[in-house]
Amino acid sequence: MKWARFEKRGVVSHALVEDRELLPVRGSPFAEWERTGERVALDDVKLLVPVVPATFYACGMNYRGHTRAISGASGVPSKIPSRPNIGYRAVNALVADGEAIVIPEDASDEIQYEAELVVVIGKQAKNLTEQNALDCVFGYTIGNDVSERSWQRSDDTMWRSKNTDTFKPMGPWIETELDLDSLVTSVRINGVLKNEFPTNDMVFDIPRYLSAMTRYLTLYPGDVVWMGTQGEATNLQHGDMVDITIDPIGTLRSPVIRAGQ
Amino acid sequence: MKWARFEKRGVVSHALVEDRELLPVRGSPFAEWERTGERVALDDVKLLVPVVPATFYACGMNYRGHTRAISGASGVPSKIPSRPNIGYRAVNALVADGEAIVIPEDASDEIQYEAELVVVIGKQAKNLTEQNALDCVFGYTIGNDVSERSWQRSDDTMWRSKNTDTFKPMGPWIETELDLDSLVTSVRINGVLKNEFPTNDMVFDIPRYLSAMTRYLTLYPGDVVWMGTQGEATNLQHGDMVDITIDPIGTLRSPVIRAGQ
Repeated sequence: MKWARFEKRGVVSHALVEDRELLPVRGSPFAEWERTGERVALDDVKLLVPVVPATFYACGMNYRGHTRAISGASGVPSKIPSRPNIGYRAVNALVADGEAIVIPEDASDEIQYEAELVVVIGKQAKNLTEQNALDCVFGYTIGNDVSERSWQRSDDTMWRSKNTDTFKPMGPWIETELDLDSLVTSVRINGVLKNEFPTNDMVFDIPRYLSAMTRYLTLYPGDVVWMGTQGEATNLQHGDMVDITIDPIGTLRSPVIRAGQ
Repeated sequence: MKWARFEKRGVVSHALVEDRELLPVRGSPFAEWERTGERVALDDVKLLVPVVPATFYACGMNYRGHTRAISGASGVPSKIPSRPNIGYRAVNALVADGEAIVIPEDASDEIQYEAELVVVIGKQAKNLTEQNALDCVFGYTIGNDVSERSWQRSDDTMWRSKNTDTFKPMGPWIETELDLDSLVTSVRINGVLKNEFPTNDMVFDIPRYLSAMTRYLTLYPGDVVWMGTQGEATNLQHGDMVDITIDPIGTLRSPVIRAGQ
């Protein structure tokens, strides 16, 4: 089942996705809902981010190849984390499928994509075990953890490097049924394949992360956990189109614009 | 004007605060509202955190004395930041005035308070100048940035040290009228004064922070910015009562419990 969120004539609704049509519901998939009976063509609406999280979690350094690539770029020796360490991203930076990544005028050329599987929480959860952790998961979507590497090196936090407005494309919708081990994440820039990796080849997998996190914190419906990325990225430029595909979720598409151009 | 948020018989409302009474409103102070005409005694309701932020910002190392204290505790040389660097906290950790700080069983004894002035945003804002920055502020409340120092030293992020459930008391309400320069922040443990400092004696003041942040990010109504703390803290123990006072906002009171005791 695929769940989208969209706006039409100023009204925001959740909807099931079937082929190229939306089936809007009253209510929310995170609480109670019923179909309205309407059908709306996907092309006739503006898709929104499929959920606005109360807390926006992000795993860092959760794939071995990316950890090596980042340490190469920063000059700091490669260090695979010894335990799950969760970080945070900011809601201001979220944009939906089809919306532009806007690079600030004063950013360097080192603007890079990071293709990520996003876990969407469906049930309030504390003290999960690795065995029951996936029971709290509502579904999965796609995230692009856009990063300005010069700010990532120079700043004490990731506020600018990763949380500048528009730096967090997420979508296009949430898929509730997935076989995690069969997934492949691919990145195409202007249609050319730049990166491809087995999505579930993580240092700490989803059950490990959720059980570690919920020893100290409560997860709530709508919270999202971005699971990290693999490999090395190339720089994004004004006019580029970035497509991140994780089938059967779909493709998250983002045009790239540099402000002032 | 003081704005509280409370729950009575399962219904959540905003209210104006007058003496020890609440004057509930329909709607929200962040949008449109009107008085219901009711009056409710403060003692008859459960206060909630006065706002649940979309993005929960926190300034680090924003007072010179605290920067020296933290560097002494960590063994890392004192370093006053050269520019505003904003960080994040997590909504899961918020608790209201009167609610307990619950120390996990496996935490060390180094559980410390950090008394902070909290800026509550009232208007959507981007590209603020230092001159107009305060125009987007709705009001001010009080935060306690409770921190587990051993985890702060050992973990790559502050997810556990600062964002464990109940580690972010905020309240009791929002005061919309303040003379920032006249404020004094004080901390009492079990009634004994432990820390007192001029609230506005920051490395980077509120206009400087908000203008720096909004060069890259949009602030939204209800976002909060915790402005950092001053000085050195003592450890909190099971059974303690922590009172943080910033008049004329009021006092944020938190009992301390260690799980399993």
